[in-house]
Amino acid sequence: MTERGTAGPVEAAKSLGAILRPLDVQAVTLDGGLWARRQAVNREQALPHGLRMLESAGNLDNLRIAAGLKAGRFRGRVFMDSDVYKWLEAAAFEMARRPSDSLRGRSEALIELVGSAQGEDGYLDSYYTVAEPGRRWTDLAHGHELYCAGHLIQAAVAYRRATGDDRLLAIARRFVDCIHGVFGPGRRATADGHAEIEMALVELYRETGERRHLDLASFFLDQRGRGRIGQNRYDSPSAFQDRVPVRDATIVEGHAVRALYLTSGAADLYLETGETPLLDTLKRQWDDMVERKLYITGGVGARHLAESFGQPYELPGDLAYSETCGGIASIMWSWRMLLATGQARYADIIERTLYNAVLAGVSLNGEQYFYVNPLASNGEAEHLHRGGCRRKPWHFVACCPPNVMRLLASLSHYVATGDASGLQIHQYAAAHIVTPGVALRMETAYPWDGRIRLTLEQTEAGPWALALRIPGWCTGASVRINGRENGDHTAPSGYVRIERGWTRGDVVELELPMPARCVEAHPWIESTRGCVAIERGPLVYCVEQADNPGTRVADLQIDAAAPLHPVWEPETLGGVTTIAARGWSIDTSVWRHQLYRPIGSASPGPRRSVTLKAIPYHAWANREPGAMRVWIPRAGSS
Amino acid sequence: MTERGTAGPVEAAKSLGAILRPLDVQAVTLDGGLWARRQAVNREQALPHGLRMLESAGNLDNLRIAAGLKAGRFRGRVFMDSDVYKWLEAAAFEMARRPSDSLRGRSEALIELVGSAQGEDGYLDSYYTVAEPGRRWTDLAHGHELYCAGHLIQAAVAYRRATGDDRLLAIARRFVDCIHGVFGPGRRATADGHAEIEMALVELYRETGERRHLDLASFFLDQRGRGRIGQNRYDSPSAFQDRVPVRDATIVEGHAVRALYLTSGAADLYLETGETPLLDTLKRQWDDMVERKLYITGGVGARHLAESFGQPYELPGDLAYSETCGGIASIMWSWRMLLATGQARYADIIERTLYNAVLAGVSLNGEQYFYVNPLASNGEAEHLHRGGCRRKPWHFVACCPPNVMRLLASLSHYVATGDASGLQIHQYAAAHIVTPGVALRMETAYPWDGRIRLTLEQTEAGPWALALRIPGWCTGASVRINGRENGDHTAPSGYVRIERGWTRGDVVELELPMPARCVEAHPWIESTRGCVAIERGPLVYCVEQADNPGTRVADLQIDAAAPLHPVWEPETLGGVTTIAARGWSIDTSVWRHQLYRPIGSASPGPRRSVTLKAIPYHAWANREPGAMRVWIPRAGSS
Repeated sequence: MTERGTAGPVEAAKSLGAILRPLDVQAVTLDGGLWARRQAVNREQALPHGLRMLESAGNLDNLRIAAGLKAGRFRGRVFMDSDVYKWLEAAAFEMARRPSDSLRGRSEALIELVGSAQGEDGYLDSYYTVAEPGRRWTDLAHGHELYCAGHLIQAAVAYRRATGDDRLLAIARRFVDCIHGVFGPGRRATADGHAEIEMALVELYRETGERRHLDLASFFLDQRGRGRIGQNRYDSPSAFQDRVPVRDATIVEGHAVRALYLTSGAADLYLETGETPLLDTLKRQWDDMVERKLYITGGVGARHLAESFGQPYELPGDLAYSETCGGIASIMWSWRMLLATGQARYADIIERTLYNAVLAGVSLNGEQYFYVNPLASNGEAEHLHRGGCRRKPWHFVACCPPNVMRLLASLSHYVATGDASGLQIHQYAAAHIVTPGVALRMETAYPWDGRIRLTLEQTEAGPWALALRIPGWCTGASVRINGRENGDHTAPSGYVRIERGWTRGDVVELELPMPARCVEAHPWIESTRGCVAIERGPLVYCVEQADNPGTRVADLQIDAAAPLHPVWEPETLGGVTTIAARGWSIDTSVWRHQLYRPIGSASPGPRRSVTLKAIPYHAWANREPGAMRVWIPRAGSS
Repeated sequence: MTERGTAGPVEAAKSLGAILRPLDVQAVTLDGGLWARRQAVNREQALPHGLRMLESAGNLDNLRIAAGLKAGRFRGRVFMDSDVYKWLEAAAFEMARRPSDSLRGRSEALIELVGSAQGEDGYLDSYYTVAEPGRRWTDLAHGHELYCAGHLIQAAVAYRRATGDDRLLAIARRFVDCIHGVFGPGRRATADGHAEIEMALVELYRETGERRHLDLASFFLDQRGRGRIGQNRYDSPSAFQDRVPVRDATIVEGHAVRALYLTSGAADLYLETGETPLLDTLKRQWDDMVERKLYITGGVGARHLAESFGQPYELPGDLAYSETCGGIASIMWSWRMLLATGQARYADIIERTLYNAVLAGVSLNGEQYFYVNPLASNGEAEHLHRGGCRRKPWHFVACCPPNVMRLLASLSHYVATGDASGLQIHQYAAAHIVTPGVALRMETAYPWDGRIRLTLEQTEAGPWALALRIPGWCTGASVRINGRENGDHTAPSGYVRIERGWTRGDVVELELPMPARCVEAHPWIESTRGCVAIERGPLVYCVEQADNPGTRVADLQIDAAAPLHPVWEPETLGGVTTIAARGWSIDTSVWRHQLYRPIGSASPGPRRSVTLKAIPYHAWANREPGAMRVWIPRAGSS
């Protein structure tokens, strides 16, 4: 079977470190279920909403002023341009899914605007052009010029791949030429405060075949670790991933989004060069994240302070930061690690993060966004900056909304990959997969149901291997081929690999049992002590006030030994499986006027038997404001 | 019996709201035990160390540059002058305790320097004079000019009372005249971003009898609540206590030190005016703090973010902010509430906060300071900004060290008060109390021992009342007068009041039983769930790695039902009572590579019976760096 190849003209890109290859940008179509519904809302509600927000927040006016089309002052933060680029990237992926005159018209108008804001020398950044002319490249730590350039490049490559239109790519290439003139060996040697340019330059290399872009990405990565960024009294090199050289890093630290955009860039470099020390450090850092710094939702970046990773096991619940962009960055990185290794654990984290930390970041109607994603809330509106229990239409720092948009528009990219031996299915969703030589229909009600039916609609002659991920949360998975049991063949990689000569019409049935389960956390995590969380399949659940009338969510305890009862509720929150659990509501009124008391000095108060009702965490805060918690104190049944 | 009177010339101050009156600044001498030892270290180590730090950090140079005595640029933050004033206030209290040629010489040199930095018009602020000339009073929210003025006033009043020297007071009065020219009815109507001037102006009124200072304090308080301060995208009026008018406030919110300096100022205003609505709002806010936002140590201000109070029950342990200055501010406020009400609960919180949250802020050698006081630490050095498990010699924002110095130097002020009927003892320590007509010796090994022996060395003729606080933590207190049981006479105020005709040589013996106890926390606090803390008397305990070799503090569990064993250890940490408890060390190695797992999916691992050894929380981090925790998970004995 032939390789399925990276999307785009990759003749120059050797991808020496890649074990798996992404499919073509249009190879997978999601055509039903949760993902397709989220994509539809993203296309129909979120993208138009986003464009309105870019208009009202000043992002577009900033570009108009930079272009001389309008008078006025710069509005917002230095990185306003990047939100426009992320929106364009999302629009591109949407047009790859299905053409749209409306999206094309809006996108082309934006591209023209972006182009008109570009300087003669290719420089393009509305903040510095409008607000600080003459101060270009003077504050790499905080100026975000290379960060914005990175987003421009990513949008441009996506737009070209999706539509064939290379006007945005031409703009990006002019800016990159300008950047090459400033940075690199013999020129300025430093890195941006916010990683992003690195993965963008690797992608530009893949798209154009120009080696100098890969070299510049490598150059920027090599600048890290000299303790030059954030060297002042408020910041620290750690916050900027400048404490140790990239290849010496053993932990994830500092600003979570920056950290994981950097590891994503390093992983991209590895995918092209196959340089083993780079993969080794990335594996170490990824393990540090997953084994010590990960929320059960997949969320990362525990600290509000500096939006950063905490110490190991520092994972507060109501004070969780868990920025939506952090989850997205984690997915980007894990995706590259999956391509580099073929190991299911990376796809497991993509799944956990997507269904929980990231989907929670956007409302069911696509027009409200969380920046911060706590795992517990007292239900009051003003809970911490950017947080709270209500999503907002937009944010002053609006990185998250268009980041969610581009991720949802490109969800199909994460479903499957190819290699020389065949096809790998990493994520399960109702979908149609068409690659050169093979067409495959995937039918499933996942994540509500663990049965997945794959039908070969077309196949090459000769044997090839179909690999199916067995999620880490699953025990007792079974595979049937044309109705016959396949036996247990899960490889150490975490995949069942079925190699055979296939025939059109062959049916593979994968069954992933998904009983609801109670999960406990490592004893060193302070916020989860004595508690359990409910999970089912890839979903983390929570109890929300709206589903538990007559009691207070803060007063609930669960009998973790009693059975959990999943119930499909088509009318709830757009259709979700809820879970009923046995528990109690304790009487905290006996504590009135006391925060602390000697044990045994007062009655614990009566408790009342209740049935707890849990919903998927990602669906919380879509009804009236109310308290929510993922982790529920456990109590005995006596 | 005559009133014992506020210190200083108070002819004009009517103190209409005060039920109790502070004693004269030299009335109480601490002459043994923990407090006296801390005072000695403060005098001999901390004050000289502080002066060296003020020199090296640039505080003194800033004043020299402002005075034209030196060339150079301003160093540090805008409020650098306030650290100098706090040091002078501490030195003044020390000289009131016992004269010192060395302290006097150093203080007079500083006072001369401060005076030389003052402008012709009385304005005095080295930051604006040096760094932003012409920009005076342009950034009240962040400029801290009135905050610095407040500290100058407090130092000046203390210096005058302690030494009779009014040179610093003259400087302060010139600055206050300048301030009167800028702010007030018909002039600028706004408030400082950081409260402090309010209580200072009331104190200046008490010292000078000039009503206009009280009126200006009242004016500044009335400016609050119009939502004008912090009205930008990063701050909020809540952070600056500008959300609601002072008299409408029901909760403590925002920056903790600012909030409690403001309530202290409002309480000072109440003490002079007796305006009931002001006391009502202060009681509500105090209850909100103590019932919903207080660490067991008495620490306040849970959030690193904006150094602010959290939501109710938001009290993380390893992420606690609990700034040392927050604890000090809480003591200041509670002291004023005690004077206003005569209720022991305010003295209880002073005691809890002083022995735990505040004393933890300084090392036993007096030369190392915590800014942030977490209730748990993993023992690694770089744990959060300003925090960590090692105190530092000084901080870039160095508000805490000289604040600790002035508090320790003035500890004697908190011991006792007077009223028309007699004398009230609020805090227990080896001390000698001399007021007009009464001299009393207090002998005790408190807080290590609950027995207090009071001997009347001199007394007025005629009956008067001696009131003794029965701490909230104590049950079974008993009082003997000249060897005879007094019966149980604790009043609703929390004091045992003994009114009689006293004779020289009368002995009152108070016995406060202090068995070690396990304390639990309100179920709504996330960080303490399933845990207990050990307390004995007024002290909160912690387990620190140094005392628990062979196990990991993070792996300890306690059998809360087993007896606790206090042991006096004269050689440990300068002499402390440690507590031995029965517990286990669990085996967390079975969790390797996992943060989360289904319950019942793995063995909990073996646990090993151990004896936990706990030390007073305030003494932690005085040996080699290591993990520490106040709250210990409880486990059954099976």
